[in-house]
Amino acid sequence: MTSKPTSSRIVLASRPSGKPVAANFRLEREEVRDLADGEVLLQILYLSLDPYMRGRMDDAKSYAKAVEIGGVMEGGTVARVVSSRDAAFKPGDIVLSHSGWQTHAIADGATLRKLNPDAAPITTALGILGMPGFTAYAGLRNIGKPKAGETLVVAAASGAVGSAVGQIAKIFGARVVGIAGGADKCDYIRGEFGFDAAIDHRSSDFASQLAAACPNGIDIYFENVGGHVWNAVFPLLNDFARVPVCGLIAHYNDGAAASEGHDQLPTVMRAVLRQSLTIRGFIQREFVDQRPDFYREATKWISEGRLRYKEDIVDGLENAPEAFFGLLEGKNFGKLIVRIAE
Amino acid sequence: MTSKPTSSRIVLASRPSGKPVAANFRLEREEVRDLADGEVLLQILYLSLDPYMRGRMDDAKSYAKAVEIGGVMEGGTVARVVSSRDAAFKPGDIVLSHSGWQTHAIADGATLRKLNPDAAPITTALGILGMPGFTAYAGLRNIGKPKAGETLVVAAASGAVGSAVGQIAKIFGARVVGIAGGADKCDYIRGEFGFDAAIDHRSSDFASQLAAACPNGIDIYFENVGGHVWNAVFPLLNDFARVPVCGLIAHYNDGAAASEGHDQLPTVMRAVLRQSLTIRGFIQREFVDQRPDFYREATKWISEGRLRYKEDIVDGLENAPEAFFGLLEGKNFGKLIVRIAE
Repeated sequence: MTSKPTSSRIVLASRPSGKPVAANFRLEREEVRDLADGEVLLQILYLSLDPYMRGRMDDAKSYAKAVEIGGVMEGGTVARVVSSRDAAFKPGDIVLSHSGWQTHAIADGATLRKLNPDAAPITTALGILGMPGFTAYAGLRNIGKPKAGETLVVAAASGAVGSAVGQIAKIFGARVVGIAGGADKCDYIRGEFGFDAAIDHRSSDFASQLAAACPNGIDIYFENVGGHVWNAVFPLLNDFARVPVCGLIAHYNDGAAASEGHDQLPTVMRAVLRQSLTIRGFIQREFVDQRPDFYREATKWISEGRLRYKEDIVDGLENAPEAFFGLLEGKNFGKLIVRIAE
Repeated sequence: MTSKPTSSRIVLASRPSGKPVAANFRLEREEVRDLADGEVLLQILYLSLDPYMRGRMDDAKSYAKAVEIGGVMEGGTVARVVSSRDAAFKPGDIVLSHSGWQTHAIADGATLRKLNPDAAPITTALGILGMPGFTAYAGLRNIGKPKAGETLVVAAASGAVGSAVGQIAKIFGARVVGIAGGADKCDYIRGEFGFDAAIDHRSSDFASQLAAACPNGIDIYFENVGGHVWNAVFPLLNDFARVPVCGLIAHYNDGAAASEGHDQLPTVMRAVLRQSLTIRGFIQREFVDQRPDFYREATKWISEGRLRYKEDIVDGLENAPEAFFGLLEGKNFGKLIVRIAE
């Protein structure tokens, strides 16, 4: 009998007020317990870092439960089966799990999905073929509904969701304008992802650049940012524009207090009325029935070279907090993943 | 040959800043010109007064063109044909037209719809069987989508749109809470319109009364008011709530300046995201293809006593401005109509 592994894990030490800091996290080690029937012991290979995790650190009302103080930070993971008491899994299998920020975990076999490493690189299960890619697909198919010739704008356009939104909207026939931070990212989304235009939101004349890039206005704004990007987009929205809302990264550190400054809500509501706008928040799991369609279509688009992706891989669980802080400030370049083991 | 009639008409004398006042209107008289081929001379019998007319007095961007200075105030009307150069109409026919605030008008026959006075009182073409009734139907069918057991809230609930919204939502199986100004209106919408509950928005504890009347939260808020009603509704919205927006009467006098006070927009957008809310503005004509369905269903519901209506009829064109000011302050009780001739 082999000795039991020890799991290193990053737990939530305290709730942030505003920006999260290193002191909000704590690295712990714990010996892994014995498996019960139906359970599987996993060695985590890759951890996905995503903006939604900022919300899990607060105890405010949200669409998902907050991480408890002392609890392991949650997150999507790709893992290798070490041992199994579920007949569906055997040691060496590669699976998608939701094991969080740790090196080893025990999971109920029923919650795992087996991955085929020959079909696609296993990290894609955390990005383009995983939750971020499906968020893009579901938001476009059900809310954005791009039509040929329409103009779509998406921010964080070099990121996991934004890059997929733009490319899928182009496949649906839309003209696509991406917003990103810095010239490198803008060059990349034009060159590699084939966006029609890319605007640097850090430019002093960002709003007028965006207006110039959208001569026919904006029919779909895929909202994942909020803040000053929204302010630039809002006056350009066309009648009947659709705004799927899947993230508001600019506001995740706002805290409970409402923002300073005059109240924009009446102005926005009047525009909603007179322009027949649709603003619709969503979480991809609402559309879980469409996952097989997505997986089939996205796999085909990838194989045809029409859907590309970029990953930004950081080594070592201990570096996850720092990488996560960077994600919240747009420092990553592509889908952010932590490699925990080879 | 009979002498040509003189039309009395109320024109827009100046644009209001904030609340409209009498000086924004002017009564004029003009001899009616000869008919061209295809035209019909109308004597206006009834004029509909509706909140949207406030928007037509401003020259701000809107879903419809502003009334020009010196132009006749626009509005839906029921009229009698005086003479006709369109073979489809003969003197004495009763028609629905969009002739505005005047006693006589010339209309292109193609823009008129003949009414059958034996089928329903002709004033219903301006209310329950007209634009307000169809606004209620279209907003519920396409956006609100009430399901059995869900809770719907609507304000201005004794008015033309609100009373239809509540009753149609009840036909669809929802539990309906109406908001109105004053005990008389609240009694009426419970008694005559069969709402499950009615709340007076002038009560000092309005928000807590509303919360008590919605123990399971709010699934659909049919927004036609904004302002402090929205503030009371917003915290009660359930996950996946739908907010069809067909009016914002509390804000029509806001002017171009954004409101004072802290910015509620980030708070609302965060709720849109975490609760998968839908906020969707609309104008009934977007759904014009559904008018025959509406007319057939609503006529049947009326005949079965399941859809009732109340009209508030004011006599005399010269009293239209004063009645309109009252409408903007909720002084009317039922669908507001001006009787211009018998």
